[in-house]
Amino acid sequence: MMFFEGSEKKVEVIICARAGSLRKLGRDFWSGIVTRADAEILDILSNDHCDAYLLSESSLFVWHDRFLMLTCGTTTLADAFLHFLDHVNDKDILYASFQRKNEYLSHLQKTSFEQDLARIGERLEGSAFRLGKLDSHHHYIFHLNRPYEVQPGDVTNELLMYHIKGDSADYLRSPDQTIKGVRRLLQLEKNLPSFALSDWLFEPFGYSLNALRGDRYATLHITPQEDSSYVSFETNLDLHNSCLINVLLTALNPGSWDLINFNAPETTCSPGDYQCMTESNLNMTCGFVMSFRHFQHKDHRIVKPEMILRKAS
Amino acid sequence: MMFFEGSEKKVEVIICARAGSLRKLGRDFWSGIVTRADAEILDILSNDHCDAYLLSESSLFVWHDRFLMLTCGTTTLADAFLHFLDHVNDKDILYASFQRKNEYLSHLQKTSFEQDLARIGERLEGSAFRLGKLDSHHHYIFHLNRPYEVQPGDVTNELLMYHIKGDSADYLRSPDQTIKGVRRLLQLEKNLPSFALSDWLFEPFGYSLNALRGDRYATLHITPQEDSSYVSFETNLDLHNSCLINVLLTALNPGSWDLINFNAPETTCSPGDYQCMTESNLNMTCGFVMSFRHFQHKDHRIVKPEMILRKAS
Repeated sequence: MMFFEGSEKKVEVIICARAGSLRKLGRDFWSGIVTRADAEILDILSNDHCDAYLLSESSLFVWHDRFLMLTCGTTTLADAFLHFLDHVNDKDILYASFQRKNEYLSHLQKTSFEQDLARIGERLEGSAFRLGKLDSHHHYIFHLNRPYEVQPGDVTNELLMYHIKGDSADYLRSPDQTIKGVRRLLQLEKNLPSFALSDWLFEPFGYSLNALRGDRYATLHITPQEDSSYVSFETNLDLHNSCLINVLLTALNPGSWDLINFNAPETTCSPGDYQCMTESNLNMTCGFVMSFRHFQHKDHRIVKPEMILRKAS
Repeated sequence: MMFFEGSEKKVEVIICARAGSLRKLGRDFWSGIVTRADAEILDILSNDHCDAYLLSESSLFVWHDRFLMLTCGTTTLADAFLHFLDHVNDKDILYASFQRKNEYLSHLQKTSFEQDLARIGERLEGSAFRLGKLDSHHHYIFHLNRPYEVQPGDVTNELLMYHIKGDSADYLRSPDQTIKGVRRLLQLEKNLPSFALSDWLFEPFGYSLNALRGDRYATLHITPQEDSSYVSFETNLDLHNSCLINVLLTALNPGSWDLINFNAPETTCSPGDYQCMTESNLNMTCGFVMSFRHFQHKDHRIVKPEMILRKAS
């Protein structure tokens, strides 16, 4: 079985002004953080607000006052987070969170969320929750127990798509795909207007994108493997009046998907042929309101048995 | 978190007449098999057809020509299966299967299905499949690649219930429960008429039942823990005109449940407020037709976040 765990772990930290700029810690510092997660830097895109590092396993975004890092596969993001904590004064941290999505094959991960939590909990006073169902899609989050005043426009939308199907999925699994082809397939330039893009095609397949426009970011990661396909899209754009989510759902036709929002108003797009199967909402004491929703396509009921072994007599 | 993995692994073997009676291998032999799985025998119920062993983790049924063993928790059923294979002539095996249900917390298991499969596959020529979705409820099965003529009446129904709710669930979590109380709650004597029963109440809670009538068996195991509750019921009774499944669903009110059948006709009972979310069917080359179905309750959409850690500043 050709398996790769696309599902990401994520860390996000906001620091106060007196702590100085996180960007000024420099490339060597951030490269060291990335190494701790067992990943490496492939490309860098910068503007006045942010450095966007494209990683061998997902992405790192560094602003002056915050950073956000996503890593997939069997990376050890908790190690990177703890290494970062060694280099900052705890009192300078305004907000910190550590998330883990449910994995396809969690037993192949180097640590569980509970193990990560035990180590992080020794360093930071925080709370942790699971949103969603233990026996279905769910999402873990740890956050610092410290009141934080969320600034207007500080929203996050995470769209996680599973079991993509159809022509687009076939293209994303084909050896003929190109960066230009993927951008066109997902209408990325049209739907991320005026964004600078940094993207990468992996061998034999797999695609990653970082995008920047001012202080706004978007990131997309495609793990197209048949039977365990996963595509994540995340942005701090306000999607209230945007159909970006619908564009991606229509193109990729996932059997199921999750939407995780932080302080984000409901998108006005309707999920079409999808049914909401799980919903969990959390008013975090640190100031953000988090919501988790899991959807299943109405036609994603009958699935063929997957052969794992055949040894003939 | 008070967690116990109720979800079972299962092995079933049928041998030919010339191999002699499996029951005659005796209690010491079967006790050795049970020990290999890291379980122990709590009670034995016997009739002319079968010895039903109630285990510290689920059940073992031994007939003259077959045995069936279910074990939950972090037991090592593959070890027990391999130990059994050491004691039989491979040619005497008419049918063999090894199943694993998806676990709530698979990373806490001592082995994965793939690891079990690698060892079993070295000893038996067979095929393995996953029915259901990798990111939702699913079921793994390995079976011997050998044509087998299934006898009439050789059916299996497995009902697996998750997230039980309501008064019955509360009772099964209470310190006041009694064996008599559980039997009454689930109408076991009424719904398993003329069956001899062997049951056990665990500390602080948890209930197991083996039941025998002639060559028919039923077995029920309750792991009532809030947030990770699981109840399994399995029988070779023909449930075609029975409402036993509905009785259990009504009493336990699970948020979701799976039904796994081998050569069993559809039950005529309707699943009421449940919606079928996944269906997989497999015509096994060894002669059985297996079906897997996963249902979710219509009211099991909104779930409260589960707090995992709270460290106050």
